[in-house]
Amino acid sequence: MPDLSKPAVTVLGLGDMGSALVRALLAAGYPTTVWNRTPAKAKPLVDEGATHATTVADAVTASRLLIVCLLDHNTVADVLDTVRDALSGRVVVNLTNSTQGQARELAGRYDVDYLDGGIMAVPPMIATPAAFVFYSGSRSAYDTNKAVLETFGESIYVGTDPGFAALHDIALLSGMYGMFAGGLHALALINSAGISTTEFAPLLKRYVTSMAGYVDGLAEQIDKQDYAINVTSNIAMQSAGYINLTLSAQEQAISAELLEPLGPLMARRVADGHGHEDIGGVIELLKKGNKK
Amino acid sequence: MPDLSKPAVTVLGLGDMGSALVRALLAAGYPTTVWNRTPAKAKPLVDEGATHATTVADAVTASRLLIVCLLDHNTVADVLDTVRDALSGRVVVNLTNSTQGQARELAGRYDVDYLDGGIMAVPPMIATPAAFVFYSGSRSAYDTNKAVLETFGESIYVGTDPGFAALHDIALLSGMYGMFAGGLHALALINSAGISTTEFAPLLKRYVTSMAGYVDGLAEQIDKQDYAINVTSNIAMQSAGYINLTLSAQEQAISAELLEPLGPLMARRVADGHGHEDIGGVIELLKKGNKK
Repeated sequence: MPDLSKPAVTVLGLGDMGSALVRALLAAGYPTTVWNRTPAKAKPLVDEGATHATTVADAVTASRLLIVCLLDHNTVADVLDTVRDALSGRVVVNLTNSTQGQARELAGRYDVDYLDGGIMAVPPMIATPAAFVFYSGSRSAYDTNKAVLETFGESIYVGTDPGFAALHDIALLSGMYGMFAGGLHALALINSAGISTTEFAPLLKRYVTSMAGYVDGLAEQIDKQDYAINVTSNIAMQSAGYINLTLSAQEQAISAELLEPLGPLMARRVADGHGHEDIGGVIELLKKGNKK
Repeated sequence: MPDLSKPAVTVLGLGDMGSALVRALLAAGYPTTVWNRTPAKAKPLVDEGATHATTVADAVTASRLLIVCLLDHNTVADVLDTVRDALSGRVVVNLTNSTQGQARELAGRYDVDYLDGGIMAVPPMIATPAAFVFYSGSRSAYDTNKAVLETFGESIYVGTDPGFAALHDIALLSGMYGMFAGGLHALALINSAGISTTEFAPLLKRYVTSMAGYVDGLAEQIDKQDYAINVTSNIAMQSAGYINLTLSAQEQAISAELLEPLGPLMARRVADGHGHEDIGGVIELLKKGNKK
């Protein structure tokens, strides 16, 4: 039952994530209007208390606060372009997956108070303590609508640059996919020797979790551009030891392709005279301006 | 002051790790004989109570239990070959970095009770609660010498195959380097936008630590060779979203090379008709027998 003392909210896009957002809003009592290109997706949400708008224009005019969760950046621009005038003066919170550049482009495209968000959760995690969402862009849009936004999970505001939420989101996903890549290689090795990966998994989690503490030291090196601080194992030693990772994969007939790029980067740092430093210096080789 | 009721131990190799092992033994009261190719490394340890052997033969005959921590596999074989007869009947615990194949080769090379170990620690962590060591090979060598071995850190016995300690060691390092690769990419992105990596680091640690829980699901998929279980976000969606990681890096003029290999592997699984499954299925593409 919507609480009419609460502000109306419109959600555009009812995929798995959009639907999860709507359910969080309904559970918190917000009068919620929903729209989706394929109207059938609205049916279960209407049964749960949402109001269905059959056109984007109706959806937009129903609420001052618009939450957008569509397939991708181009879809957002296509949909919002059709209601450009109706948008004027409203708050747009765009939670669609996008890059920092796409978010900035959208922020300047309409006459709206624009807030971009990066959701760090899969749909079943929405409205649980495990979910958090980065926001950046209009500070006033964030402050005014914080209570609504926090129905989705913890909110973390990372600056007025509308691209910074996406940048934080993608940086964390990059970290996660690196860990998954390493984890998949590890599990493939263990599996290839006929050892139970299920029994091995707790060791892997424990080690990765404990080694994640090392990130603080790397971050400090990078901020100071001084890769000779916090060195517990220098890159020359690490580079030499890395060879065993490749050899071991060969012995198990497992492709080492997921581990491939880091080896040559470490070796280049050593060859460039940074062997006594730490692995953090590898980021100098990732900066395109520094490419040979 | 050595406790003469405790068994004598010999340590071959006094690099940073070997020296840390000797110090742990001395602190626990074991009469400890040390040898190193460059004798100067023995000096500080002798000052702390170790006995210096000037030849490998003297070092070997001083103790029934020999702990070996040399530069690499070939060095171990070179050194031990010179004292082949003297080794007979002793316990060799080889803690030198090696692959599973190298460990197996060494186990069969001498008439000894052979135990291989993989140290999951950097030297300053030895004898702290954060250190742990995998052991595999002779069960009796492990059981008889467990008290000595546990002076280095927690000990985890992983089977009679002398290669399994190295395999577990390398699998965990592979997981760690994957995480570092992802973390370095993430930190490079954040740094390129002028944001403090030191302030970002806690978010990265928190996210990677929380996502490490996902490893259990991947491990179960792999053990069952059923990649359609535990799917929270299917590989088709993950593969589509992965494109933003590359785009975002391009926008920041950061090379995405560290993230490169996973993208095509996910895309191949989708193209092969596994789009509804989870990312765990990528390991099928790492098995060399399955290569096109």
